[in-house]
Amino acid sequence: MVSWPPVYDDSYMPPSGSPYWFRELETMDPKEREKLIVEKLRAQMQWAYERSSFYRRKWDEAGVKPDRIRTLEDFQDVPFVTKDEIRKDQAENPPFGSYLCIDPEEVLRIHGTSGTTGRPTAFAIGKGDWHRIANAHARIMWGAGIRPSDTIFIGSFFSLYMGSWGALVGGERLGAKCFPFGAGVPGQTLMGLSWMKEIKPTAFYGTPSYALYIAEVAKENGFDCRKDFRFRIMFFSGEPGAGIPSTKRLIEETFGCKCIDMGSTAEMTPWMTNGECEERRGMHLWNDVVYTELVDPKTMRVVPYGCEGVPVYTHLERTSQPMIRFWSGDLSMWTDEPCPCGRTYPRLPRGIYGRVDDMLVIRGENVYPSAIEEVLRATEGFGGEFRIIVSREKALDELRVQVEYSSEIQKAAEREPAILDRFEKEVASKIKAKVGLRPVLELMPPGTLERTQFKARRVIDRRKLFD
Amino acid sequence: MVSWPPVYDDSYMPPSGSPYWFRELETMDPKEREKLIVEKLRAQMQWAYERSSFYRRKWDEAGVKPDRIRTLEDFQDVPFVTKDEIRKDQAENPPFGSYLCIDPEEVLRIHGTSGTTGRPTAFAIGKGDWHRIANAHARIMWGAGIRPSDTIFIGSFFSLYMGSWGALVGGERLGAKCFPFGAGVPGQTLMGLSWMKEIKPTAFYGTPSYALYIAEVAKENGFDCRKDFRFRIMFFSGEPGAGIPSTKRLIEETFGCKCIDMGSTAEMTPWMTNGECEERRGMHLWNDVVYTELVDPKTMRVVPYGCEGVPVYTHLERTSQPMIRFWSGDLSMWTDEPCPCGRTYPRLPRGIYGRVDDMLVIRGENVYPSAIEEVLRATEGFGGEFRIIVSREKALDELRVQVEYSSEIQKAAEREPAILDRFEKEVASKIKAKVGLRPVLELMPPGTLERTQFKARRVIDRRKLFD
Repeated sequence: MVSWPPVYDDSYMPPSGSPYWFRELETMDPKEREKLIVEKLRAQMQWAYERSSFYRRKWDEAGVKPDRIRTLEDFQDVPFVTKDEIRKDQAENPPFGSYLCIDPEEVLRIHGTSGTTGRPTAFAIGKGDWHRIANAHARIMWGAGIRPSDTIFIGSFFSLYMGSWGALVGGERLGAKCFPFGAGVPGQTLMGLSWMKEIKPTAFYGTPSYALYIAEVAKENGFDCRKDFRFRIMFFSGEPGAGIPSTKRLIEETFGCKCIDMGSTAEMTPWMTNGECEERRGMHLWNDVVYTELVDPKTMRVVPYGCEGVPVYTHLERTSQPMIRFWSGDLSMWTDEPCPCGRTYPRLPRGIYGRVDDMLVIRGENVYPSAIEEVLRATEGFGGEFRIIVSREKALDELRVQVEYSSEIQKAAEREPAILDRFEKEVASKIKAKVGLRPVLELMPPGTLERTQFKARRVIDRRKLFD
Repeated sequence: MVSWPPVYDDSYMPPSGSPYWFRELETMDPKEREKLIVEKLRAQMQWAYERSSFYRRKWDEAGVKPDRIRTLEDFQDVPFVTKDEIRKDQAENPPFGSYLCIDPEEVLRIHGTSGTTGRPTAFAIGKGDWHRIANAHARIMWGAGIRPSDTIFIGSFFSLYMGSWGALVGGERLGAKCFPFGAGVPGQTLMGLSWMKEIKPTAFYGTPSYALYIAEVAKENGFDCRKDFRFRIMFFSGEPGAGIPSTKRLIEETFGCKCIDMGSTAEMTPWMTNGECEERRGMHLWNDVVYTELVDPKTMRVVPYGCEGVPVYTHLERTSQPMIRFWSGDLSMWTDEPCPCGRTYPRLPRGIYGRVDDMLVIRGENVYPSAIEEVLRATEGFGGEFRIIVSREKALDELRVQVEYSSEIQKAAEREPAILDRFEKEVASKIKAKVGLRPVLELMPPGTLERTQFKARRVIDRRKLFD
């Protein structure tokens, strides 16, 4: 039997030169790891069952008993938890819901969602959880190549959003110097650039959108992202960008860094247990910390490696508000093919590339916004920002893409206007090739569309107006 | 001999019901405490002398030796450190200056000043310091009445500004629930109000300006600050407001809370060692953590209790970038009269009410902006915001005050216009009585002047243009 919740030694550091934080756990035979996961699952479920009316009622109704979970296959009988369900539970049992499994007095930190898609969800995190998060993040950030000699510039805002806080406690536990600069306050980016030049941080955390925004502001203000800054590793969450090949390449070329994709979903954070290693072949699922399944949204069963599914997450070390089979609604594909890093965790080789409800069905084609982003960022002359507008003209859907062209193209077009036509045709046919549908393009001068310092919102679906 | 740096037991909690964190230290005979302070001073100076070329050079030139400091009187021979001096040292020894007394590898956190008044200063804080800060803040916040049962809403932004971080680590160490919400991002205040209503935090930390801004936004959006929120204690730093009697009263009446004044100066933070107790009779100088002297800006010697002087601060527990006799440039008055709380620390009964260089000399009168704020906030019909504009017409200085009137007065004046004239006369004569000078008043409708979410800038001195 495992002792649960696990206790981490805060003085532990990996042997010098080791690519792994915990070599044995990270490189073990996946079959062996399964046994460990099952034991942790059972202990986590037992904890929740005894302390939470939410889980007790839910599992009793489904006829599920924690002590009868003997295999990962058994675990598939446990019902999913959805975002709507926990929102409703919090509305009925404010503020933290009946799935809070610790005494409210033991809560250390309160965070929450921004509530952009409905009633905000409140997160209550206990002291023990916070401690385990620090250890989990140190381990995953070590896997991304961060070392105690690094200085980490955290360029995402410190408020409800948990990613920033997770990167901070992980960086502290790892022994790196942390510079929690934040983001989002008017005028802050320009000040941040001066600090990056002065302090020369070697690692960066934020959203991919913000890194691209920083690059723009740097260029406008005469900074050279490769010479004035010294980012060796930039790691991201909050958005899929760092897993989109052309966006990843753009960030790596702009800053001269390794661009590392990380992230899971708000309800699971700050356990950022999807995380790439330095090889950057897709996020590993660090599934001895958070157990992740990929589930077919039709059959609701786990899909084989090589297939697409919805990540379903289960905390294995959370005492406060454990999520057990949380339905993320995201879409990804997984593999168990070996990674050169030697870790034996499954991987998401194409990142998290969409959401079940993000997928636009346009004239019968499945269109992911991330596919259009991938095309644009790989096209010479793209100005950095775009919008996707779907509308319905009479009975027919229309895919309209507003695309900024670059200032280089803008200048060239002053001498030779046809250059913009060629750009337009190239973009349209590349999008057609990728998504199977020819878009109506609307070219725009550079800087026309609004930039974001946090997460971009680039899809406008006007068809709902006609429903 | 004291063991230095001091080691705090992270599992320590005061006896249940105790008003003190460390009863003995807080209530000891001040003469006994002096001995303790002298020992800590000597150890702190020795540490700096051995590790920092900045202090070694400075003290060698002044003929000062750490081991010869035997009394607080001896300590007065130690030369001051000024803001300009550390800025210059950082420019010559980037990024942290030659007064960094730990190995750069031992730095845990990087923060800094915003650089609004010149080159930004970078702060490097070691792990041991961070740990001691947490313990010092828990103690001072306990003195302010915060208890483990409290939920602390931190409504100031998490970036360079250290106050937010200090409140957070102190709150965590104390065992309270912390809700680090931040501030400054567009749209965040309104979202914050919903969270305050939902989570019902019992304590608040931020700037006084921001608390008043919250009250305005709450009113505009139909929140009742006393019924919808449950703030028991609101504690402040970053600005003098919470120490200005009428501002303190306004905050207490608006929110139905105790308004607690805290703060020192950026170079000393996050050691927020000026802090009121629940009696609210002026900030105690917790001078066994940071030793504070009040110094006459002319004679440069410590002034007797009852007199005005410039707070000069000395870290007693900082290994990273200790400030030893840091000249704050602020102005205050101190007393050793007993406080009903039983603590025997000296107090600043009128708070920090100005800066040596803030004081406006207008037609030979010494005018502190805080005195004008005090008058306005105590006047019925004041609309919440003001500006002080000093200009020179021919040879004569002019004191002009832009004053917003309230929406209540605005409505009343629609029926009876003379009401505004009466308000104007009342304000003008009250200011004359307080500062000895009749101002030119410019009345403005409510909401005309810009509000701040951080620190207000309310003085415009146009005379410089004519110099």
